[in-house]
Amino acid sequence: MQQILDEFEHRLQNQPDLRKFPEGLYAPMRYILQLPAKRVRPMLCLLSYQVKNHEFTNAIYELAVSIELFHNFTLIHDDIMDNANLRRGLPTVHKKYNNNTAILAGDNMLALVYKKMVLAYPFLAHQMISFFSNAAIEVCEGQMYDLILTEQEQVTIEEYLQMIRRKTAVLLGASMGLGAMASNAPDEIVQKFYQIGEFMGMGFQLQDDYFDVFADEQFGKKIGGDILENKKTFLLISALQEAIGSDYDDLIYWLRIHNKPEDKIFAVKSIFQRTGVGEKCIHMSNTYFQHAYQLLQELESYGNVENLRIYLQSIQNRIK
Amino acid sequence: MQQILDEFEHRLQNQPDLRKFPEGLYAPMRYILQLPAKRVRPMLCLLSYQVKNHEFTNAIYELAVSIELFHNFTLIHDDIMDNANLRRGLPTVHKKYNNNTAILAGDNMLALVYKKMVLAYPFLAHQMISFFSNAAIEVCEGQMYDLILTEQEQVTIEEYLQMIRRKTAVLLGASMGLGAMASNAPDEIVQKFYQIGEFMGMGFQLQDDYFDVFADEQFGKKIGGDILENKKTFLLISALQEAIGSDYDDLIYWLRIHNKPEDKIFAVKSIFQRTGVGEKCIHMSNTYFQHAYQLLQELESYGNVENLRIYLQSIQNRIK
Repeated sequence: MQQILDEFEHRLQNQPDLRKFPEGLYAPMRYILQLPAKRVRPMLCLLSYQVKNHEFTNAIYELAVSIELFHNFTLIHDDIMDNANLRRGLPTVHKKYNNNTAILAGDNMLALVYKKMVLAYPFLAHQMISFFSNAAIEVCEGQMYDLILTEQEQVTIEEYLQMIRRKTAVLLGASMGLGAMASNAPDEIVQKFYQIGEFMGMGFQLQDDYFDVFADEQFGKKIGGDILENKKTFLLISALQEAIGSDYDDLIYWLRIHNKPEDKIFAVKSIFQRTGVGEKCIHMSNTYFQHAYQLLQELESYGNVENLRIYLQSIQNRIK
Repeated sequence: MQQILDEFEHRLQNQPDLRKFPEGLYAPMRYILQLPAKRVRPMLCLLSYQVKNHEFTNAIYELAVSIELFHNFTLIHDDIMDNANLRRGLPTVHKKYNNNTAILAGDNMLALVYKKMVLAYPFLAHQMISFFSNAAIEVCEGQMYDLILTEQEQVTIEEYLQMIRRKTAVLLGASMGLGAMASNAPDEIVQKFYQIGEFMGMGFQLQDDYFDVFADEQFGKKIGGDILENKKTFLLISALQEAIGSDYDDLIYWLRIHNKPEDKIFAVKSIFQRTGVGEKCIHMSNTYFQHAYQLLQELESYGNVENLRIYLQSIQNRIK
């Protein structure tokens, strides 16, 4: 598995498409791509392809690269919208360069995604672009819902789940669906791969909410960013529903406080702990992963899903 | 011709793809599309298609819509980058809504372009997406060069022409190329259509530079925006090369002045008049249009280019 990841990373870092002029446009694209990352989406694409194929082709790696490009396009633009200064501990694209460059680098990346996709699979162009564009549109809608929910006082768990489905899970689903499509899987199989990725994406995002508050800081994850932003995560939405008495009043109080970051993180985290929303979050995450494994099992008659299962487990068992 | 434009406009204003949720994402997309516009790019696509076809299909209108969507995506994002308050006398998308909404509405529009394109022409998906993505990438590169030239003290006419070729002309070329492609034209014919559009686009942009300073204000065009921004237009670059003595000194002086807009426009316009750069600009524009007509003549043996010729002439003879 590491070998696949290394090969992918090598290809990603050596894209001729990213060594063009003007340098001012392509340097920021290369910059974000060289930040350390798990490459979950391209790995899902490659391992879904592997279910029916022993060998990886140049084309499937190129498809995986185009998926990672899309993901990074969303990161560049989302960081502008969230006014985020840091990504993985390093300056975001719009902070290192500027907003205009970041907008344009993202736009160019999105156009490049499509170019590479049809170049890799000319005979599947219609099927892939149509499938992928629908996902891309849902991702944009998801980001809009995220912006809307941030402003909205009352948010339900249902609204939250619909938002993360679009913003995160759909792309993980599409990554797997495209990998299956590339190995000429029939439509209903592609749909099954998609569904596995979507379930996994839900579990993945719920974990992210959890880690933002409860990760072990010794693994280098900065804690509490979502708390400081009053981000409508599963934890906050649940705590607002479940906290009672002084816990509820304290939570409302701290949502209005912006000038004591460390106290705020400590206080809100304590309320999360007392209301048990962390366990609830992990429980729900695990439920989504279970759905993914069940569907994966149904694919055993279709091909060799072992590597994919191991990979899903490694994601579920990650510690940050 | 008016009938084609009316039919196109009707379809553009009634796209089910633009009546979706969240409303906060789709309303800004509909807003920019209902601003009055010439629809040059979709018209070039439709009229290029018409060279070999008597009837317009649903598919060719959908392709034309997707091209207009792409153009409007670039307008939304360019207006953010240029910090423009008004477009056609009305608030730009990021001013009417906000920057985040404008970034996202543009992104979503770009994904929708690709979705509609392959839906309209599934069997030409590879050919069209590959052709179009290359153009889209050049448009992004062109916008980056525009940002770079704005900051650059010395700009040559050659640099300027390379910039407007990418930023403007390539998309007009692609619009014509796609129209031809949709009627199953062979590659070398598609290339010829593309080339006509590119020449025409160069002429078109040079005219725009001219009109920004010399248009008759009675036709509702606001004069002098480029002058106030010190925009590196053909006029300014040429005037910096050709003005001598006190005209040159005055020009340098006014480039540093930002608090006397009316005086600045009057003074710089006078220098442009004395150095004759307006005539030079129109002469160069006409030369590009001539190249376009010559190539169009070569297509007479291929199909009926009469409407296309009339349309090109109407663009060349526009007064604003």
